[in-house]
Parts: sequence; C-alpha cells; structure tokens
Amino acid sequence: MFYHELNPKIDYSRSNLRWNAWGANDQDFGRKAQMPEILKLLQREFKLDSIRETPSVSLEDIKIPNSKLSPNDIKNLSAIVGKNNFKNDRYERVFHSAGRSYYDVLRLHFNTLNSFVDGVVYPKKDSEIIKILEYCSKNKITVIPFGGGSSVVGGVEVLKGKGQKAVISLDMTEMKELVSFDPISMTATFQAGIYGPKLEYGLNLKGYTLGHFPQSFEYSTLGGWVAARSAGQQSNRYGKIEEILSAVKLISPKGTVETLRAPASSIGPDWNQIIAGSEGLLGIISEVTVKIHKIPETRKYFGLVFPDLLSSINFIRKTNQEEIKTSMMRLSDANETRLYEYLGELGKTNTPIRKFKKFLQNSYLRAAGIRDNKCVILVGLDGSRQEVDLSFRGLKKLWKKGGAIYAGEKLGQNWIHSRYNMPFLRNHVMQHGMGVDTMETSSTYDKLEDLHKAGIESLQNSIPGSIAMCHLSHSYHEGACLYYTILFPMDPKKPEDQWLKMKRAVSDTFTSFKVPISHHHGVGFDHKKWYESSLGKPGIEALNGLKKVLDQKEILNPGKLFHS
Amino acid sequence: MFYHELNPKIDYSRSNLRWNAWGANDQDFGRKAQMPEILKLLQREFKLDSIRETPSVSLEDIKIPNSKLSPNDIKNLSAIVGKNNFKNDRYERVFHSAGRSYYDVLRLHFNTLNSFVDGVVYPKKDSEIIKILEYCSKNKITVIPFGGGSSVVGGVEVLKGKGQKAVISLDMTEMKELVSFDPISMTATFQAGIYGPKLEYGLNLKGYTLGHFPQSFEYSTLGGWVAARSAGQQSNRYGKIEEILSAVKLISPKGTVETLRAPASSIGPDWNQIIAGSEGLLGIISEVTVKIHKIPETRKYFGLVFPDLLSSINFIRKTNQEEIKTSMMRLSDANETRLYEYLGELGKTNTPIRKFKKFLQNSYLRAAGIRDNKCVILVGLDGSRQEVDLSFRGLKKLWKKGGAIYAGEKLGQNWIHSRYNMPFLRNHVMQHGMGVDTMETSSTYDKLEDLHKAGIESLQNSIPGSIAMCHLSHSYHEGACLYYTILFPMDPKKPEDQWLKMKRAVSDTFTSFKVPISHHHGVGFDHKKWYESSLGKPGIEALNGLKKVLDQKEILNPGKLFHS
Repeated sequence: MFYHELNPKIDYSRSNLRWNAWGANDQDFGRKAQMPEILKLLQREFKLDSIRETPSVSLEDIKIPNSKLSPNDIKNLSAIVGKNNFKNDRYERVFHSAGRSYYDVLRLHFNTLNSFVDGVVYPKKDSEIIKILEYCSKNKITVIPFGGGSSVVGGVEVLKGKGQKAVISLDMTEMKELVSFDPISMTATFQAGIYGPKLEYGLNLKGYTLGHFPQSFEYSTLGGWVAARSAGQQSNRYGKIEEILSAVKLISPKGTVETLRAPASSIGPDWNQIIAGSEGLLGIISEVTVKIHKIPETRKYFGLVFPDLLSSINFIRKTNQEEIKTSMMRLSDANETRLYEYLGELGKTNTPIRKFKKFLQNSYLRAAGIRDNKCVILVGLDGSRQEVDLSFRGLKKLWKKGGAIYAGEKLGQNWIHSRYNMPFLRNHVMQHGMGVDTMETSSTYDKLEDLHKAGIESLQNSIPGSIAMCHLSHSYHEGACLYYTILFPMDPKKPEDQWLKMKRAVSDTFTSFKVPISHHHGVGFDHKKWYESSLGKPGIEALNGLKKVLDQKEILNPGKLFHS
Repeated sequence: MFYHELNPKIDYSRSNLRWNAWGANDQDFGRKAQMPEILKLLQREFKLDSIRETPSVSLEDIKIPNSKLSPNDIKNLSAIVGKNNFKNDRYERVFHSAGRSYYDVLRLHFNTLNSFVDGVVYPKKDSEIIKILEYCSKNKITVIPFGGGSSVVGGVEVLKGKGQKAVISLDMTEMKELVSFDPISMTATFQAGIYGPKLEYGLNLKGYTLGHFPQSFEYSTLGGWVAARSAGQQSNRYGKIEEILSAVKLISPKGTVETLRAPASSIGPDWNQIIAGSEGLLGIISEVTVKIHKIPETRKYFGLVFPDLLSSINFIRKTNQEEIKTSMMRLSDANETRLYEYLGELGKTNTPIRKFKKFLQNSYLRAAGIRDNKCVILVGLDGSRQEVDLSFRGLKKLWKKGGAIYAGEKLGQNWIHSRYNMPFLRNHVMQHGMGVDTMETSSTYDKLEDLHKAGIESLQNSIPGSIAMCHLSHSYHEGACLYYTILFPMDPKKPEDQWLKMKRAVSDTFTSFKVPISHHHGVGFDHKKWYESSLGKPGIEALNGLKKVLDQKEILNPGKLFHS
C-alpha cells in the first residue's frame, strides 16, 4: 500500500467525470447503502414531513447558447493545439462552465446556470499556451484557466471580459509529465496539469512523497493547488502548497516569469508568493517545482476525546507552540463529533453486547467529566519511530493536562481510508431536497473560540432549521483554520437565494472578526466582495496595476479575485 | 544573561554612531590589541613590502553640496515632524547618504561619495509618514526610507528620481514602540524602526525571543530586516524574517496596505511576501507583527571537524532532509577554517605544553584522515532537554558516517560571544590599505560544491593576490546559502574600480549558475543589473506596474531594485 492509500487508477476521461456532481461515475459514497438511514436522520433533525425527490436535469436538458467562437477562431485554435485538443461539444462546454461548490452544482442540477464557455483547449506544451494567449489577446477572447475544476469559490465561473466576444476554457490536464527529478536536493518539477494521485503515485514508486493531500486530492491538479493556495491534510508536517512550492513558471501574454530553483533568497517581492494565489489572473502556471520527502518510516494516527472546545483548542495551541511535531491535528467540534459518531454507528446491529460496551464507554467518559460538549481530535504522526515516539510522549502530557481520553488508532485508520469520500455524500443528499456547503477561515488563537461561536450562529440564523458544525483542520504557531459545514433543507422555491443569504451572513461575520475570507479555498468570484473590503483599495488597485502589465488586454480570468 | 547575549545598552545617539565605519564609537573589535599581528599576517599573505597607512578623511573634509530643499520645504517638513525631528546638519546628511558596504565606506573614507541627501526627517507616528509622503509627492522630493542604515547593497544610495528636485532620508528609528503583545497567539506588534537589541531585550524580559539574529543585529531595525528579507543566524529554527513575519502595515503615497493578523490564508498574492523585499520602493513599513517564541529551556552549541567540503555539505544536507531539528549549522570552508584557527591562536603564549597539546590534536585529526582540507561546522541546538538530546543523537550518527570529529562546546561559546564583532575588523584593516567584502547567494544542493569553487575562483581571479573564503550559514530542505568573504590589498590608485571589477566577476558567476544574486542582503543598487536579468523583463515591468499605482510620482527609493 502506498503512502496514505491513494487510488492511482481513477479514470479521468471526460466521459467518466460527472458533469453535475462530485467525482467520476465509477466512484461513490462509501456508505451509499446506508443513505436511506442518513436521510431519515436528516428528516428528523430538520423536522421535515417527508423527503422530497429532487433529481438533476439531464445533460441534454441544459440550455446552452450557441458558441460565440467564429469558424475562423475554431480553425485557428484547433491549429494551435491540434484538432483533437479543441472541444466544443455539449459535455465539454458544460463541464468547464462551473466548479464544484454547492452553488455551482445547484445551478447545474436545476438548470439555472446562465453562462457557458464557448470552447475548450487542451494544450500539451508551453509553446501552445503562448500561442493561445497571443491569439486570444489579439482576438478579444477571454481565457479561463482550468485544472481539475474543483473550485468551490466560483474560480471558473464564466465571466466574459469587457469588450470581449467569447470565452474559452484552457484545460491544463494534458500537461501532466514529470519534467525533472533531483534526489540530491529533494525536489521534483512537474507540468502543472497533473492530477494529485498520478503525481503522488509516481513519487511513491521512487520512495518519495509530496505530502499534499487536500480534500479534493483525487480531482484537482498541481497548478490548481498553487493558483488557489491549497492546504493538504498533513499540512502541519509538509506545509501548505505555497510552502511546498520551490519554483514556478508562469506564462502570461506579456511573456514568461520563471522563478529560480533556490531554497531562499532576498531578491525583491517573492514571485512564488505572487503567483501562488493568483487564481489564473496573471498567467498560466505551466510548471511547478516542489519539495519532496522520503516516505516516513512509520505513522501513528489516533483519536482523543476532549471535554469541550476550549480544552481541545488549547491542546492544539500548546502542541504547536511547544513545537511538538505532528502531521495533522483535526478537531471536530461537538456537533461534528456527534455527526461522525452517528455515521460510525450506521449499519451496525445493536446486539446486547454492543449496547453494554457503549454503556461502559459512556460511563467512562462521564466519569472523566466528558459529556455532551465532547470534541474529538484526530492526531496524525509520521516520521521515524523515534520522532513518532517523542511526539506521542509530548502529546500525552498535554492531553492528560487537558482532561482528554485516548480513543485509539481505529478512529485514525477509518479516517485515512475514507478521507476523500465525504464530498460524495453531497451528490446523494442533493437528490432529496437537502443542501450542504462548507466555508473556512483562519484566526489567531486569541479569538478562535469567539469566532467559532459567531460563525456557527451566523450560519444557523441565516437558514432556520439548518445544522452547522465546525472543525479545525490546520494549525500553526499563532492560530488555526476553522472549517464550517452547514446542512439544511433546500428552499424549494429559491434555493439560490437561500445560499446567497447564508454566504453573505457568514462572510460578514468573518470580516467583522478581521480574519481572511478563506484559509485554503481561495477567493474566486464568490469571495471577491469581502476580499476587496479587507485588503482595501490601494492593495486591490496595485494588484490590478501588476496584472495590466502581464495581461494588457485583460483576457485572463476577468472579474475574479482583485479584477473588476 | 539574556538569550544569545545581546547588548541592550548601545547608545544610538547620532553623535555616537560612526559616520564612516561600522558601529558606535564606544564599541570596537574584540581583538583590537592584536591588530598589529593580524596586519602582519595579511602583509605576509598578500606578499606586501610594507603596510600602508590609509586613514579616513575627517567629517569636515567631506564635500557636500548645498541642500536643494527650499526654506519653504524645510519649514513645511519641520512642521510635519516637529522642529527637532528635521535635520540637515553635516553629520546627519552624510550619515544618511551611504550604507555600510565596503564600497559605501570606501567612498566615505576617501571622500569620493558624490550624492548626499538634502535633509532627514524622523517621523514618530503613521500620520506624520502619511503627510511626508503627500508633501514629497506634491513637491517632487525623493524619499529614501532608512532603518539602521546597515545596507551592504546600495539600498540607501542617494539617487534622485527623474524630474525631482531634492532627496530626503526618512529615518524610522524614532518609531520604536511595542504596539501590542499577544501571549496566547504568541505574536507581538512593533513599530518598524526599533533596533534589534531593544526589541529582543523587551521580549526577553517577558520570557520570549524573536530568534532573529542577523550579523547586523545591533545596528539594524525590524523594518529594515523586512524590507531586505534578512536572515538571522538561528534561521534553521526560527526562519528568515519573511517567515517570522505575521502581518505588516505599509504606508504608500496611495494609501495604506495592512495585512491581516492570521496564521495562513488563501486570499490572492501574499502581500506579506510582496512587502518583504520591497526595499522601500512600495511604501514605508511602519508596523510589523512577528511570531515570538518562549526562550528555549536549554542550548548546546558545538563544533565538528570534517575532512573536506563535500563531507560537510552532505552532513548539512542530510540533517535537513532527515528533519533533525537544529537552530544553526555554520560550515566554514578550508580557507575560513584556517583564518579562524589563526585568530583563535592570537595573543596566546606558545608554551611547551601548549605546543605538545597542539601536536597531539593534529596527530589525532591526521589519524582520522582530516588534513589541510578540513572544514569546521558550528552546530547550534536550542530547545527542551529532550529535543536537544534527540537532535544531538541524530547528528552524531550523521557526523560519524561523514568521518567528522567532535570538537566540543568551547568553539560554540566563543562564537556566541563574538558573533556581532567581525564587522569591526574592517574598520581597522581599511586604515591600512586593505579591503574586505562579503557576498552571498543560495543554491540547491546538487550544484553547491561546483558553485562554491566557481565563486572562490572568480573572486580570487578578479583581484590578484586576494584571499577568498566561504561559509555556508543557512540551510534548508533543498539547498543552502553560500557566503563569501574576500580580503585583499587595496588598489592604491583606483580602489573603487578594483571593487567594481570584483563585484561584476562574482555576480556574473552567480548568474551563470542560475542562483539568486542575494540570499539575505537584498538587491538595492549594487545587484540591480543581475536581478533584472535573472527575473526577466515581464517580471520587472509587472513590479513597476504595481509600484506606479502605490507611488504614482515615483518618489520612493527610485532607481533601485526593479525601478529604473
């Protein structure tokens, strides 16, 4: 088995990727068999009379306007990338016109998406990208860079630039090769369109790992990670993608910016950190050099049960500030802990022995003062046996002080095996009149508990009858990320307005706390308003000044992030 | 004793800071008494007939043109900062017209500096900075931001912007207060003009450290560190300043850019990393929030002797790649090792017992295969006793494999106590017709040994009779910094041309290896040409596009870094 159990055999052919939901047709939610039970629980929680059927429209039902590309455009773009790498069939145009946020999927599901790309190009090398950008700059064609298309912030929303006549999607997934490999310096250079599992699998075969496992891992690309400042689940050990990044090549209409493959430097503003987070506005990320690591000798993933949120936040804070090495600490708040407990019980027969075991477990927890507010932390350690032991001993002291109970390694193993599976649950609940969305931010520790509460309240108030929960999935010396999930019965009439209201409420809450509108999802179109207000006019205008040099005709992903 | 033995009592009053050499008048080279011996060694090495006397001119001899500021400008600027905080006397104008590179000091020493600021303002608060920038934008006055003035790359070279009539220095050292302190999140916010020792001393009193100790520590400021992407000697543990940085406030003529105090985010290009390295071109860094750490429980600093360069580079590489925690690893190449050995022997009487001890030492080293190519690595460990022990055990395995000999803690202690002292040596050799300069870069491990050799050769070839040496003082997962020192007899006729030729030679070598022109000194004016060619036109123009929005009149440090 390879590091963190990746699946190297996902079929990414376009006919196999769902056009209106998460993932490939041949993959699904692991607890699909228990969906009736899950829906019943949600019905009870939402106090619904019945479960609605809300199936998706079919691809053929989607209203798509005619392509705005002229026959001449099609001829010329096809000449650049090759006939087979220019696409404008129904599937390709729809697949590339939305990301995978709840809002995007909702609009596909109910056929309310309004804008579609007019065609898709799949370049295979840098020289083709250069020609595409040149052609589109000259011919007033908007270009939306596309990696895995897993954006949940409207990063690939189809917005046409001012005065432009058509929109194409530039899909990078045919640029997927290992360019160079340096085992001495432990770096590897890849073309940016490579999907997560293929990249990681190739490294694993050589004994290395990238260590970057975002939730979207199976359906996202290296270039997309960099463009949106992605965070992997083992970020405590390996860092966010902007820290994993060592060098990058960006192809803009003005020319190429290529950073030096050097460990650190003192040569002006850091272009790696300008390109990371640029979300396709400055150019096409065509190659990325990343740090790689030997696959760790051993790992230990286990659960801890804490009496409440504050004690569990303090455990995470002290672990970071006392510099105890971990790969991951994932804290579920009381609501999320209850949900996972419920999912864990699904499909298990409640024998008398099992009931008795549960009773003993609960008595034990109650004796330790752990009741309804209990929070679970999953801790992941990777490294040499000595390192893992040292960390475990250090952590043990801290969790004993925090009043926590050790809950064993089974929790950790379960999590590892189902880690990429949760997004598939949404595919099912949306078929039954229910919605689910996630949003995230980060904060210094001093205001983390207040922010947690305010976020939950603003979510639940924005959709009466909803259930909001939160986990803390990435942590640092000075603070941590908060990641919220909201489950709710869809408004039968105006589900889009319902979503917009919720999004506004929680985003306003984040802004009032002076915390970023995103920790690792990005800004895209959905977060633009709040990003602009928090950065302020001088910063926004300065970034536009930079963009206008690299992309004089403003063809690259216009109207998103800082561009208006 | 405080963490890493800082001196909190340096008198920074302008009358006490040397106008033409390193440091304050009441501080000096620790081995000043041995200067005659040192000069004799250099005479022997350089094969000189005699030692020249080359005293500096006096401050009164410096030719300064009349100030270009009108009486009205003086009145208005004085009104903004207060009469006592506007200066235009001879000392202030000269002190603010050069940094502390060899080239800068050389021109002061021999009275060949051509350009001088026309006045100096010392703002005390943000509102004064805003007014200064507004006034100067309107009245065509160039503004050169000034921290400690320790730039060694021409960062404060007096260049007047096109069409501008006068140049002022904006000295930040009156903005030196702790703004806020958050022991929960372990961050502190300071005004950016605070000098290193005052900042660190204040934190030490509360039990914390910043952990940032650049060679210039005693005479540089927080804002200057950020502006030039400084690296401290314990960077393996605490990171370079751009990693220590948590949030920053930049005041530009267009308005203020203030980043959020959050541990990580996904909100576009990272402004912290645009401002870090901006070298005064984008605005004035007025406040900086930094991560702070508890003062470590214990420390262990010790020396190791390796047979040669490659074995010592491999030790450093493996330490990083096997993720063994260190604070510092400082490798001296064979030439530098010999110099430090010589300095270590100075002033010691060569008794028969001492001679015998030396003989035994050398026999022991020879038996271990360690001869003339020997390289010393100073290793620094800070942390809990357990952490330090674990690291020490891990390192021991590596150094045994590398054929090294443990050389004890005395070497480490000596280094800690004299760590800020070497720049004072230059003050003395320049009085005697000798020059010394340093330059640095960083590289991935795969080309480090070749780059080391090429750098030494290009330096020694550029000044016949010179001695070049190198250390490796900051190391990372994928590579390390190389820091060169060159000692040479000054050309009696054209010392400036001699320096320029040497600078060109080594910079061309760095560029041919595709490594950055600086790892932690910055770009300033001296490295501009090489920076531009390595970044390329699109990148340079884009940064200018960004600057022109924030600094429409281009008054801020024109002609440096990316601005032409």
